[in-house]
Amino acid sequence: MLLGDLGAEVIKIESPDGDHVRTQGTIIQGMSWYFASFNRNKRSVTLNLKTPQGKEVLRRLLVNADVLVENFRPGVLDSMGFGPKALEEINPRLVVGSVNGYGSTGPYASRPAFDFIAQAMSGFMSVNGTPESGPLRAAPPLTDLVAGLYTALGVLAALRVRDQSGKGQQVEASMLNGMLSMMAYLSAAQLATGKTPPPTGNDHPIASPYGLFRASDGFVAVAPSTTPTLTRFLRTIGLAHILDDDRFNTNAKRVERRADLNAMIDAAMQYRTQGHWIERLNAEGVPCGRVQTLGEVFEDPQVLHQEMVIDVEHPAHGVVRMTGFPMKLSKTPCRINRPAPDLGADTDTVLAEAGYSSSEVKALREIGAL
Amino acid sequence: MLLGDLGAEVIKIESPDGDHVRTQGTIIQGMSWYFASFNRNKRSVTLNLKTPQGKEVLRRLLVNADVLVENFRPGVLDSMGFGPKALEEINPRLVVGSVNGYGSTGPYASRPAFDFIAQAMSGFMSVNGTPESGPLRAAPPLTDLVAGLYTALGVLAALRVRDQSGKGQQVEASMLNGMLSMMAYLSAAQLATGKTPPPTGNDHPIASPYGLFRASDGFVAVAPSTTPTLTRFLRTIGLAHILDDDRFNTNAKRVERRADLNAMIDAAMQYRTQGHWIERLNAEGVPCGRVQTLGEVFEDPQVLHQEMVIDVEHPAHGVVRMTGFPMKLSKTPCRINRPAPDLGADTDTVLAEAGYSSSEVKALREIGAL
Repeated sequence: MLLGDLGAEVIKIESPDGDHVRTQGTIIQGMSWYFASFNRNKRSVTLNLKTPQGKEVLRRLLVNADVLVENFRPGVLDSMGFGPKALEEINPRLVVGSVNGYGSTGPYASRPAFDFIAQAMSGFMSVNGTPESGPLRAAPPLTDLVAGLYTALGVLAALRVRDQSGKGQQVEASMLNGMLSMMAYLSAAQLATGKTPPPTGNDHPIASPYGLFRASDGFVAVAPSTTPTLTRFLRTIGLAHILDDDRFNTNAKRVERRADLNAMIDAAMQYRTQGHWIERLNAEGVPCGRVQTLGEVFEDPQVLHQEMVIDVEHPAHGVVRMTGFPMKLSKTPCRINRPAPDLGADTDTVLAEAGYSSSEVKALREIGAL
Repeated sequence: MLLGDLGAEVIKIESPDGDHVRTQGTIIQGMSWYFASFNRNKRSVTLNLKTPQGKEVLRRLLVNADVLVENFRPGVLDSMGFGPKALEEINPRLVVGSVNGYGSTGPYASRPAFDFIAQAMSGFMSVNGTPESGPLRAAPPLTDLVAGLYTALGVLAALRVRDQSGKGQQVEASMLNGMLSMMAYLSAAQLATGKTPPPTGNDHPIASPYGLFRASDGFVAVAPSTTPTLTRFLRTIGLAHILDDDRFNTNAKRVERRADLNAMIDAAMQYRTQGHWIERLNAEGVPCGRVQTLGEVFEDPQVLHQEMVIDVEHPAHGVVRMTGFPMKLSKTPCRINRPAPDLGADTDTVLAEAGYSSSEVKALREIGAL
């Protein structure tokens, strides 16, 4: 999807029974909105890769391809006859991007992967949550998505190398490695001190005040990142005197008395709305914002202004509303070149482009290769 | 860092008082391990961009650059004399990558940004956590990192366009848009149904059993994603009979009686170790893994095999241990070409490469432009 959004011509190869995401989530007029939002800008070709004829079609498609992206378990592509050597013989300019769970080598390489498991193994869950909740998964499939982002980035880097050297290569990213790379300062702290960071919930481990505070109609997130910002925050909510209070006049004391301080801030903010505080605090340069549900997000004026909600017409399935493009390019913007395809909708066209006659396509279909 | 890991020559421009991350986190032998891990493969040049002479140095560096990456608040670069038009005049081939909080246009464009705030506004916090915890931040700075990934991806795409067209462009990603794009099936569900997804903690919203279960020495994450997988899971832990039990023989019933079922699974697994179950379950093809602390992650045999912990020698600061490279390229692998630089360590070299004589550099330094 990422490469397609950026303008690549993407052919999605599906087994004849189709990507199972086609049947997941809410189906409207025969279209899964989840499938639609992750399969925009693709064409769909069905291939039965268990047949020699299906494999031969794939081989012919790869001859002129720039990139193959695959997410089989390590070794599966090889066992199908498309290992690194075979692919290099088919097309030495091909860049092969592989997404997998744990990397293609090592003791866990052949384990089945799943976002939840990679969240657990990467350390992410150990710092997500609170001391009360214990280790906590995040709902979005972060490890899938991060692995996809790294794969796309590696593929584009390899394409530039290929443009210069004429030679393709293998590119790989895994859910475990990708998520581990997101642990950022938590990893640095672990490696530098040997001390395991605990789950901190909404508290900043070494700064106070910081967190969610109660306005009359919901939470406001406030992150006063520097002393001047903190001063402006407390002044705006009428608590400037706190900085002269012996119990709260250093960050260390404020961290120690975090609960007391948070209660004072809640008390000071509780009679005005989120909107009131967010306007006032932003005007003072204090980073803050509303804790939004997804329903609120998709009505947020900034989100709408940034075209992060788009309506895509799907012939025979109506308009599907989906998330827009997070990358904004001024001259070659991401856009919808085609909506998510029906299963196998482009098989005939793509095979014709690859030089198959209509009678050959018919014969392939009859033997179950498509 | 991402572009540097992939082989780019990166010059980090710092104000003379330096990136404040240099003083953050654990400092060992004068080096912040947090700074070191995010500033590998860069050279450091100090420039005082409040002086016309400092700006002129930047201008000369940009003449031959491929990419400028910046994370000022929108409009700041323009006010310094480096708006889109000025940059295009300096170097029409330049790709400009901007990372910001909310996008460079729209009602929130000029608000101060912070990871915590973008987590709140993107909807992420509304689905992270449990009904008891309420909206919950994730500890890692996900929105910073995701915005960086999208920026790097957009920059590489724009470079390929530039290689073909000769023309650079502006590329932008924001913390809010980037994180929103990670909401995946949750966004699809919200947009398709209008129903706001609740926080589900470790429970899968529509599948049971799924979650963390107690072995004798800690949690095991188990995600039996299909009916055959579920059958193998229950058989392995000695609970195959559950599928014949009237109270648990459909997924809907299992979701409804999730707490009872989870307690039975905990009881069945509690006398054997994590290692025992993980080996047995993986052998049966059941996605599972240990919930690891970061301390455990950095001793995990797969993580070590994948070289996701690397030791980097920093002259005068000793060895810094850091996270390795999540992108694996077979022919042009990511690697450490240089460790994180001391502040301004490369100012003289880089300015010499840009054509400045040593007396010019000395003069610039004397007037405070470096």
